[in-house]
Amino acid sequence: MQDTRNIIQEARKQGQDSLSEYHSKQILTHYGIPTVQEALVRDLDAAREAAEKIGYPVVLKVCSPEVTHKTEKGLIVVQAMVKGPRELVAGMVRDAQFGPCVMLGLGGIFTETLNDVSFRVAPIEKRDVLEMVEELRGKKILEAIRGMDAVSMDVLVQTLVALGKIGLEHPHIREIDINPLIVQGSQPVAVDALVVLGEPPEEQPETTFQPQQLETFFSPESVVVIGASSAEGKPGNDVIRNMMDNGYKGDIHLVNPKGGEILGIQVKPSIDDLPPGIELAIIILPAKLNPQTIRDCAAKGVKAVVLAAGGFAEVDEEGESLQEDLKRAIKETGVRVIGPNTSGHTSTPHNFTSSFFPLGKIPRGNISYIAQTGNFATHTMRYIATAEHFGVARVVGMGNKVDVEECEVLQYCADDPETKAIFMYLESFKNPRRFLEVAREVTKVKPVILLKGGRTSTGAKAAVAHTAALASDHRITEGALKQAGIVPIYHYSHLFMAAKVLSSMPLPKGNRVSMLGPSGAMLVVLSDFCKQSGLDVPKLEESSRERLQEISPPFLRMRNPVDIWGSATVHSVEFGYREGMEAVLKDPNIDAVVPILLLTDRSGIPSYDFIVDLAERYPEKPILVTFSGEIKHYENAKAFLEPRGVPTFPLIEEPFEVLSILAQCRKAMERE
Amino acid sequence: MQDTRNIIQEARKQGQDSLSEYHSKQILTHYGIPTVQEALVRDLDAAREAAEKIGYPVVLKVCSPEVTHKTEKGLIVVQAMVKGPRELVAGMVRDAQFGPCVMLGLGGIFTETLNDVSFRVAPIEKRDVLEMVEELRGKKILEAIRGMDAVSMDVLVQTLVALGKIGLEHPHIREIDINPLIVQGSQPVAVDALVVLGEPPEEQPETTFQPQQLETFFSPESVVVIGASSAEGKPGNDVIRNMMDNGYKGDIHLVNPKGGEILGIQVKPSIDDLPPGIELAIIILPAKLNPQTIRDCAAKGVKAVVLAAGGFAEVDEEGESLQEDLKRAIKETGVRVIGPNTSGHTSTPHNFTSSFFPLGKIPRGNISYIAQTGNFATHTMRYIATAEHFGVARVVGMGNKVDVEECEVLQYCADDPETKAIFMYLESFKNPRRFLEVAREVTKVKPVILLKGGRTSTGAKAAVAHTAALASDHRITEGALKQAGIVPIYHYSHLFMAAKVLSSMPLPKGNRVSMLGPSGAMLVVLSDFCKQSGLDVPKLEESSRERLQEISPPFLRMRNPVDIWGSATVHSVEFGYREGMEAVLKDPNIDAVVPILLLTDRSGIPSYDFIVDLAERYPEKPILVTFSGEIKHYENAKAFLEPRGVPTFPLIEEPFEVLSILAQCRKAMERE
Repeated sequence: MQDTRNIIQEARKQGQDSLSEYHSKQILTHYGIPTVQEALVRDLDAAREAAEKIGYPVVLKVCSPEVTHKTEKGLIVVQAMVKGPRELVAGMVRDAQFGPCVMLGLGGIFTETLNDVSFRVAPIEKRDVLEMVEELRGKKILEAIRGMDAVSMDVLVQTLVALGKIGLEHPHIREIDINPLIVQGSQPVAVDALVVLGEPPEEQPETTFQPQQLETFFSPESVVVIGASSAEGKPGNDVIRNMMDNGYKGDIHLVNPKGGEILGIQVKPSIDDLPPGIELAIIILPAKLNPQTIRDCAAKGVKAVVLAAGGFAEVDEEGESLQEDLKRAIKETGVRVIGPNTSGHTSTPHNFTSSFFPLGKIPRGNISYIAQTGNFATHTMRYIATAEHFGVARVVGMGNKVDVEECEVLQYCADDPETKAIFMYLESFKNPRRFLEVAREVTKVKPVILLKGGRTSTGAKAAVAHTAALASDHRITEGALKQAGIVPIYHYSHLFMAAKVLSSMPLPKGNRVSMLGPSGAMLVVLSDFCKQSGLDVPKLEESSRERLQEISPPFLRMRNPVDIWGSATVHSVEFGYREGMEAVLKDPNIDAVVPILLLTDRSGIPSYDFIVDLAERYPEKPILVTFSGEIKHYENAKAFLEPRGVPTFPLIEEPFEVLSILAQCRKAMERE
Repeated sequence: MQDTRNIIQEARKQGQDSLSEYHSKQILTHYGIPTVQEALVRDLDAAREAAEKIGYPVVLKVCSPEVTHKTEKGLIVVQAMVKGPRELVAGMVRDAQFGPCVMLGLGGIFTETLNDVSFRVAPIEKRDVLEMVEELRGKKILEAIRGMDAVSMDVLVQTLVALGKIGLEHPHIREIDINPLIVQGSQPVAVDALVVLGEPPEEQPETTFQPQQLETFFSPESVVVIGASSAEGKPGNDVIRNMMDNGYKGDIHLVNPKGGEILGIQVKPSIDDLPPGIELAIIILPAKLNPQTIRDCAAKGVKAVVLAAGGFAEVDEEGESLQEDLKRAIKETGVRVIGPNTSGHTSTPHNFTSSFFPLGKIPRGNISYIAQTGNFATHTMRYIATAEHFGVARVVGMGNKVDVEECEVLQYCADDPETKAIFMYLESFKNPRRFLEVAREVTKVKPVILLKGGRTSTGAKAAVAHTAALASDHRITEGALKQAGIVPIYHYSHLFMAAKVLSSMPLPKGNRVSMLGPSGAMLVVLSDFCKQSGLDVPKLEESSRERLQEISPPFLRMRNPVDIWGSATVHSVEFGYREGMEAVLKDPNIDAVVPILLLTDRSGIPSYDFIVDLAERYPEKPILVTFSGEIKHYENAKAFLEPRGVPTFPLIEEPFEVLSILAQCRKAMERE
């Protein structure tokens, strides 16, 4: 490390913005990365001598003219010739969000044509490298193919781990490119290397990480609305109504210079008039009044503040400077703040919400949402409340995240006995490295599912073949999230579909699915769909198969997926599905079961009790219901089953979209 | 061609199952494919002489010991050394379904690691080759990269077109592998080539292609149900009820040995007792009675028959032989047959159906379905009738396709003024090459959308690097369908979602979308989604942008996608969406518009008339509606809008899934 420091220091003194190839490889060698054998010589005689020592064939390189490093001027590099048809590329890049990241990909001409690369945030370990390899479309190149040995994973791990280490230990190194990393026999060897220098990144501002302090937001004993309004339809009025509609049991105080009474509560003309000891303040005042109001609240002993106003950094420069004022007020007073520009937060176990959009009684449940959007305190919450039958525990609209940040809420939800699964919508990370650290542990105990907004906006700049150019924000983010065990989703609607299943069903033990349907064609289409979604539709135990055969006409050869039309026709829809579902639920090869119910007047509508009963008797295997037939029957099935904990889906692909997400959650939880 | 015949004949005489490399390349050369320069010599002196003529460096190859071809034994091949970092692979394979197919892919070590190949059915033309290149993930390798010239498309086209031609002209050639096809400078050169021989494929059985004859199925003047039943709930009873429920205006005759009267119609005890000249017979009798019944019907002048019974080739060997009997009866009599094992067909313009599942009045419309499943005459038709507001024109359950095949129905629907768009679910093609021929023309005049069942079952056998092994059924099928302009879908539910849009909306002119929503987060997520679905969310004209700005609060910077929350809050939901939609509908950069309606009690529910009005005033641009908010309002919006021709979707991704399909349809229709 000392040697490396010296090399970097010397180069910086010379005004270089990168190291010579020779020095670049010296650093790699110091960190245990196998590099091509080479020698630096002053004349041709010495070159001949070096070549003999290295062994022919060799490559001679003259130090490039850009290299102004005095001691290398006029020098010749004698390099062993490394050949191999397998070329990789590896590197390190200092990401603006996540800091040093490690890269592995296909090398040579394929680096820029296929862009087949994978990223992880440093430090990395062996498991990360194996996952990176798994992500490469051309991963087979590392296997024993065409008479070549499999690539040594030990050496690859050593190389990539070391790249991460260099990045962490030397903030003046901005980027490292090893291209190519040629596989000689089974050994990856760095043949060409470039270390790019740069100024160390700015320190990320210190942020508070005190998740236990959030308790005040989620179970305040008393609350004050500053900017309370008597006008129906105004935020300062709706917020009071919302608390009442949700049965908030703490004290509600109101402040408005006009005084008077709103919804039966006496209004105080100023903060000064409030009693001391109120825990939470909801401030619904114009942006520019916010900093002073925070100070006034703090003076009265308020611990936690929700700031509704917009008009800060999200708008213009004036707003930005206002946001700085806000930060100062927060720092001075030590209050915790959600927002500004938040549409509120919710805590159903405490019958509380700070939302100022009329929400009615918010259904209580075990799903928590952390959202960088106001939707979950407005129309999306109304969607959940009216279209679905699951409920929420904690919901936070993060707003501008001037104080409370997403990983604090994530940790709070992880520790929260009311929360079973955590869903997030984020467009940015306030403290990306800490977020990963927190998530890495949380995902081992609870499913964490993230919809990341803005994936493709910066996705297309990878035109040249160096590490930084290959690293779109999205690629690095995807790698980082995977590393942390977070399951990515790409549909807004999956935020509800997956939630509804997790709210009442167990996480499946794996990705092995059985489905029962009234149509061979549907089963064929869905089997295709499963395969493409990472789900397996495995063979059943012989005993399960026999049971299915027993309940079906003899000319049908029963197997998984289960064509239940025959049984339903010969016996009844209820009998066919009930007995068929039980057969596959019992099967040790099956982790989850999807009945596609046949629901038409003609075929006869079953009583749905049997499904609730099966769900109770097989509590380790999720059951997700979908249907084919007349829509009114589906609506009835949904209305019956969902309040009883069995999720239903109108479209036959939807249960499998969800199961694919859940299987990934299970995998994340099983990491060591 | 004569030379090629001779080479093949000679090799077959010698019992070879493939040609020597030398002869393989001779054939390629005859067809104008650039191959490496080489000479066949008898001794080293001659080799030296040849080498000097070709120019050093050269490669010497001894004819392989497996080659028992007398005239080549002991010979030496002197070959020019071709080098280039860009290796492709090309080939021809005789597919069991589609006949000779041409392949192009990445070569060298990447052939088996990346499996990056594309197939087309021969004959191919330049456009096909350009599309094949476009499909390669590594297509950039063909461009001018790393100081290399772009690969000559002319030579590539010449090579691939020639491979197809060889396949078509020489049925004894089973496969051709050119691996590698090295790019020397800009010129692809076949360096290694193997021609594999085999028995010519069996002639596909002659099938009838008389789509105009199908008219009898779709507008029969009179019909007889053979196997009519008086028992409610029996197929022989339901079929009569279905015709009555649909208001069939022709004569209905019934046959049952018991005689009597069913649903007010006199039953004849036998076919003999029927009057002559009945056009269509629906036979609902056990399988083994079908062949003779066809003969009896034909004797009475029946022209078209629907066979309901299962129990044929889909079941067992006995059924297979029964199906052969059926074929003989059809051949002898010349009647046209749909089925057996069909659940019927429907023709709403004629108020007619042969389905024996109670369907009620089937909604009339302009969508036709060709389905290799009974679903569209049973529960799926009930889904369409109860869950959606579009109607169907012609629907055929193909059954075992013993006579009428899918491409005849496809042609019929293409010529049918009642059909606007054609949807298919198929698991196999009866006459694959003819299907492609027909589809290629039909897709130029009407959208043809296909869900192909069984895509993944044979998808994973590509383990070694030759053309046949790279050719999973699915890969070839995908290439073939694309070539024919058919748009593939992968969700069963897209069979309805896309149909509902096509039934009332125009096909968009392209893939450029504008969306208006109440939430920045939703717009961000949907923009990501569009990008991944091949849709563009382009910039607006300045005038459109100005109009959006005019109707919005000044602190919002309006653009596409359109955040309409501000305008909806300041003015009203109706005003915001109406004015916003009109601004983007007017914009020449926009092909389709998706409003995500904000529907909550609080925000106020608009009258939906304005959307119907906009759809009428901008008849060239499809409008697809989705929403966020309370589900009852969505249900009302759907109930209002869909009968008036504006399609709606409950989940915000769905309109974009459909638009992606429609943009592909447009592209297919614009092919020359």
